[in-house]
Amino acid sequence: MSPTLPTAGSTFPFVPPDPAYAERVRASFARQGAMKTLGAELIAVEPGYCAIALLPRPEVSQQHGYVHAGVVGAIVDSAGGYAGFTLFPANASVLTVEFKLNLLAPASGDRLVAEGFVVKPGRTLAITRGEVHAEHHGRRKLVAIMQQTLMVMHGKAEE
Amino acid sequence: MSPTLPTAGSTFPFVPPDPAYAERVRASFARQGAMKTLGAELIAVEPGYCAIALLPRPEVSQQHGYVHAGVVGAIVDSAGGYAGFTLFPANASVLTVEFKLNLLAPASGDRLVAEGFVVKPGRTLAITRGEVHAEHHGRRKLVAIMQQTLMVMHGKAEE
Amino acid sequence: MSPTLPTAGSTFPFVPPDPAYAERVRASFARQGAMKTLGAELIAVEPGYCAIALLPRPEVSQQHGYVHAGVVGAIVDSAGGYAGFTLFPANASVLTVEFKLNLLAPASGDRLVAEGFVVKPGRTLAITRGEVHAEHHGRRKLVAIMQQTLMVMHGKAEE
Amino acid sequence: MSPTLPTAGSTFPFVPPDPAYAERVRASFARQGAMKTLGAELIAVEPGYCAIALLPRPEVSQQHGYVHAGVVGAIVDSAGGYAGFTLFPANASVLTVEFKLNLLAPASGDRLVAEGFVVKPGRTLAITRGEVHAEHHGRRKLVAIMQQTLMVMHGKAEE
Repeated sequence: MSPTLPTAGSTFPFVPPDPAYAERVRASFARQGAMKTLGAELIAVEPGYCAIALLPRPEVSQQHGYVHAGVVGAIVDSAGGYAGFTLFPANASVLTVEFKLNLLAPASGDRLVAEGFVVKPGRTLAITRGEVHAEHHGRRKLVAIMQQTLMVMHGKAEE
Repeated sequence: MSPTLPTAGSTFPFVPPDPAYAERVRASFARQGAMKTLGAELIAVEPGYCAIALLPRPEVSQQHGYVHAGVVGAIVDSAGGYAGFTLFPANASVLTVEFKLNLLAPASGDRLVAEGFVVKPGRTLAITRGEVHAEHHGRRKLVAIMQQTLMVMHGKAEE
Repeated sequence: MSPTLPTAGSTFPFVPPDPAYAERVRASFARQGAMKTLGAELIAVEPGYCAIALLPRPEVSQQHGYVHAGVVGAIVDSAGGYAGFTLFPANASVLTVEFKLNLLAPASGDRLVAEGFVVKPGRTLAITRGEVHAEHHGRRKLVAIMQQTLMVMHGKAEE
Repeated sequence: MSPTLPTAGSTFPFVPPDPAYAERVRASFARQGAMKTLGAELIAVEPGYCAIALLPRPEVSQQHGYVHAGVVGAIVDSAGGYAGFTLFPANASVLTVEFKLNLLAPASGDRLVAEGFVVKPGRTLAITRGEVHAEHHGRRKLVAIMQQTLMVMHGKAEE
């Protein structure tokens, strides 16, 4: 009942059915033209977890100079999607059914890091949550949170 | 970057501006006719945190006998709302702007516990997240997660 | 491009695969103990559409006397779920994967009417949206909107 | 009670408090570096309404070649935000509090059009909904729907 317990998505030891999960995520990420266009970089892949970094700059900004909410959404959608994808079988691909993003603070600083965590893997659907942190002068500030539903597309491996 | 870190809403030490926050939450909860009708009980109030319990039974069920998704939503909406309310000034009341609920597993068992955690307090808005756990034979299973936006209604204290 | 066009979910002529869709919805609704406890009534079932009414009263209220946001969510979750269910095959049941509710105005008046509209039917998932209107002195006011994802549970007909 | 009525956000005649609302939207959109990077174009601004177009191409794709869900989210977030902004006073700016996106079909075709509609304007918050349509060979297909909460930042006009 304590408010200081670690939360959903952080306490389950996940075992990926495909040992090559990390390679599969990296290859798929490399095919996302949108991530390249935004300048996003895949920085961590673990079972049920993925992190993507983005450097704030005018090319990804909204009208006040902060990173655009939609761009924040794009990197955390990818982070959640690939967190889920790490636990999919080798012959399946991933599709975002829906996501919901709350913006907590202006997204700026030296670097943004979007993290996706699997909350519940499943045969047909997977549920993830996400966090976006702004790093600035060595400090980390939470700027957005997300909830997401993914679909497991069996028999549709990415080529 | 580790996926096992405690998450947003669980690591911030909150200091309620109103020392009588718990009494204020309890008095407000007692005015929620809907919680009484559903048989929900307030079981914990801490700064930035609130927990509400519900006994699964036919009166709160959906068509398969599990607790209705809308009822799961109702108790975690209240838990999130009162988590936020603990950090409001004494002369303010709380309003739900929106919430989003993902159902992860059938809600059944000996008892449901809905927990609300403040992720970001604020002068006008507060952002919370929620979890609903089903307790059964001494074990706890996560059955739903929520994200919520609250509005701080200044100068509108509940009488 | 006009903002006054009818929107998604209102323009598609749906043909239910099961001609007995309305009876199936009514029988299922009658099994939802939660709807009975809240005093909700099924008032319309059409292909891809469902409406549920609720009389505002202290038993479904929040702390200010308005209908509880969670109760508003419960009736519109059911309305969306049964809107989707009208388009399911006879041997399938329905499950809410997730829903998101925005509250627009206090829910009060003579009667609340929650409406669910199918936006996209599908073999595995169905997407709906919902509206909750408060009727007062013959006028109708929009008090909440919803987006929802449903799962089609094939081979799991309700008994 | 008919499912074929025009829906929320499409039936209210809005009167912008600032007659120069369209110029204000166009100037703000031009400051969104992210929209330029994605190749998005503002194609319509009306009171309570905004439309943004995007040409599907590899630079905005996900791993299967469709437009990335996050990019779909980015253009409809902007469309909703500027729909709301048309109804803000001249000295206010706009901030996305949260949005929720359901993806209905692969986003591809000749052109994507994201539309934002104000559902409820307000002094502090505004609620919008959005649709994204894929145009292909002169036909239009709904590929995503959105709900969004905006904040009115008074006294913070964009320069």
